[in-house]
Amino acid sequence: MPVNLNPPLAEQLLPVKGVALGIAEAGIKKAERKDLMVMRLGDRARVAGVFTLNRFCAAPVTLCRQHLQSGKPIRALVVNTGNANAGTGEEGMSRARQTCVEVARLLACDADQVLPFSTGVILEPLPVDKIIAGLPAAVANLKESNWFDAAHAIMTTDILPKAASRQISLGGKTVTITGIAKGSGMIHPNMATMLGYVATDAAVSQALLETLVKHAADRSFNCITVDGDTSTNDSFMLIASGEADVAEISNEASAEYLVLRDAVTELSQVLAQAIVRDGEGATKFMTIAVEGGASEAECRLVGYAIAHSPLVKTAFFASDPNLGRILAAIGYAGIADLDVDKIKLYLGDVLVAENGGRAASYQEQDGQRVMQAPEITVRVLLGRGAAAATVWTCDFSYDYVKINAEYRS
Amino acid sequence: MPVNLNPPLAEQLLPVKGVALGIAEAGIKKAERKDLMVMRLGDRARVAGVFTLNRFCAAPVTLCRQHLQSGKPIRALVVNTGNANAGTGEEGMSRARQTCVEVARLLACDADQVLPFSTGVILEPLPVDKIIAGLPAAVANLKESNWFDAAHAIMTTDILPKAASRQISLGGKTVTITGIAKGSGMIHPNMATMLGYVATDAAVSQALLETLVKHAADRSFNCITVDGDTSTNDSFMLIASGEADVAEISNEASAEYLVLRDAVTELSQVLAQAIVRDGEGATKFMTIAVEGGASEAECRLVGYAIAHSPLVKTAFFASDPNLGRILAAIGYAGIADLDVDKIKLYLGDVLVAENGGRAASYQEQDGQRVMQAPEITVRVLLGRGAAAATVWTCDFSYDYVKINAEYRS
Repeated sequence: MPVNLNPPLAEQLLPVKGVALGIAEAGIKKAERKDLMVMRLGDRARVAGVFTLNRFCAAPVTLCRQHLQSGKPIRALVVNTGNANAGTGEEGMSRARQTCVEVARLLACDADQVLPFSTGVILEPLPVDKIIAGLPAAVANLKESNWFDAAHAIMTTDILPKAASRQISLGGKTVTITGIAKGSGMIHPNMATMLGYVATDAAVSQALLETLVKHAADRSFNCITVDGDTSTNDSFMLIASGEADVAEISNEASAEYLVLRDAVTELSQVLAQAIVRDGEGATKFMTIAVEGGASEAECRLVGYAIAHSPLVKTAFFASDPNLGRILAAIGYAGIADLDVDKIKLYLGDVLVAENGGRAASYQEQDGQRVMQAPEITVRVLLGRGAAAATVWTCDFSYDYVKINAEYRS
Repeated sequence: MPVNLNPPLAEQLLPVKGVALGIAEAGIKKAERKDLMVMRLGDRARVAGVFTLNRFCAAPVTLCRQHLQSGKPIRALVVNTGNANAGTGEEGMSRARQTCVEVARLLACDADQVLPFSTGVILEPLPVDKIIAGLPAAVANLKESNWFDAAHAIMTTDILPKAASRQISLGGKTVTITGIAKGSGMIHPNMATMLGYVATDAAVSQALLETLVKHAADRSFNCITVDGDTSTNDSFMLIASGEADVAEISNEASAEYLVLRDAVTELSQVLAQAIVRDGEGATKFMTIAVEGGASEAECRLVGYAIAHSPLVKTAFFASDPNLGRILAAIGYAGIADLDVDKIKLYLGDVLVAENGGRAASYQEQDGQRVMQAPEITVRVLLGRGAAAATVWTCDFSYDYVKINAEYRS
């Protein structure tokens, strides 16, 4: 079961003016399941996104990049679950294009003003006929109040939907930010995550919106891992509809930008952490905080070495403070000139190791106490500098194996 | 249960003249378990080794490096299981030294002529008193015919012992090679593995022996992974006792060296593969062959990306040809300019993917047939050059989680 993750209530999700969402059951993989979502954007909307760096990226990811580069305003997004349209070659590109053409026809815009997204099984042909047959129902369903259903429509192995809203005040006017995300396995985003969408009614210049989406992704979706597998379909999209009654933000040093930036980043972190809390088979939520590094990059190396170690993850599943496994992961993380005598390792508030060995004050029962909790912080002080990085991850349980051994059955 | 791994029979393990082994029950972690082994070497013996690159390397690894660098002939090796003496700081070094001093006293040599090895739990103090109390019994047990018991004495979570012998003819004389290894989890050797010992009665110059141990390690222990966790204690030692009636080998281009090199390498591969076959929770043995790379390094990147992916490993556990997961792993392996359209993916003899997508000839039932077997070859043709690399690994099962969640209980 998800770790300390409360599903959003429909009434907590605030509409964003200029962003309408429509949901349908297209029967892509299973019957009677919301599996198709269309998002229609108003005339003033601007969109920026970051995508997976996986070289086997999915056809829709390639098409999204092309459509965003065309410079035309984006008018719609279309998302299907049940099939990733990845590892599908030229035929996959053709089917993603057909989807865009049909959305464009229904919404009276051009095909390259539509961004397509897919999530599900890799290496199987996209059932584009079912998607095209389902689109009219999704378009007929378009409403600004549909975020709750949209969060459900993009789920795959997710147990709970992920969604949140925030409101901030800019120049005395209220601006809304609402976002949804999905993902549970194949989660180790590299520049983005497996489908995250955040929309605001603020107006932001295209250049600054692209800065903002990277800023938020690097502090949220790019700090999480479930299993170390970078997906073929990761996409994180930020939409500024420009419909709130406030001036366009285009100055990176303005107070308005900083307020919006921090609110978008915080909401993105909530969504990213929700993916980890609902990570496949998760029973624990772990924060790996690495401090005192010579660079942020080396702190991330150490954080991910710990977060990816199956030995560390199974020990956390068992609530067993077998903490030598963490030391081993720090040791092989890839810092060639690491001086292990300078490292301090904390489990929660308990000092576990220093001077290259177990701390004299450490008692097994203290480690045991921290390990029992569903939320655990591992803190590593490297003693090499002032850089820091945080990685969020979950444990590794029987259910992870079960879910992934049975994924296609 | 181990995958296609037959335990060695005692009579299959040939003594190596000049190498005597003694075993004892020291009660280090559990009672009535062989957990201490001493290996005594004759006067002509030379020793070369490679060790873990983990920065948190164990105290005995540090001491082994010092003793080998001292240039004095090595007279004995001492191995305990049940405690890794890693993450133990200065006190750990002191206890490893005490062990060497006691072995030296019993065998009438100097302490720096003894190489110590430990394997077991990390971050707990080495029970050196129990080891010292057990040493006289191990020394009293020294016999050249003890390889079978020695293979048992170094086991931890191993289900079966790993050992093999070979005989080759050099200049008309018979030379024997016998080796043992242990390891089952925390297996992703980086320069060496978690305890492997190969001995021959050939005479080899020190310089050439050091060349040979690296040659063999790079083609055997450095090609395996169970869980991607590089241990703190990996050590692979090659001993040439010089007691066979053949001339010393010191020329890397000589026919004698090539015969010996290939026999040592082949035996090392058998031992390394035995570790994977007995990998924690293993039900499948997978060979990941990556060919057509621009460099061996990039082939290894791809091989390890596949071999470490929990999604790939759980699919193999389920015998489910969910092969898109392999494409995803190839895509995120780290080759920045990879052209996915040039890649061919084979499962056994079945072509699965080409031209960036599923092969037209691929049928699910063919993939299913290959996946049912306990031994599976994944072959990736990168289409970039002539380099190749092979990685051996196992699947990821419920039992992996069970073994590692309960390791210390």
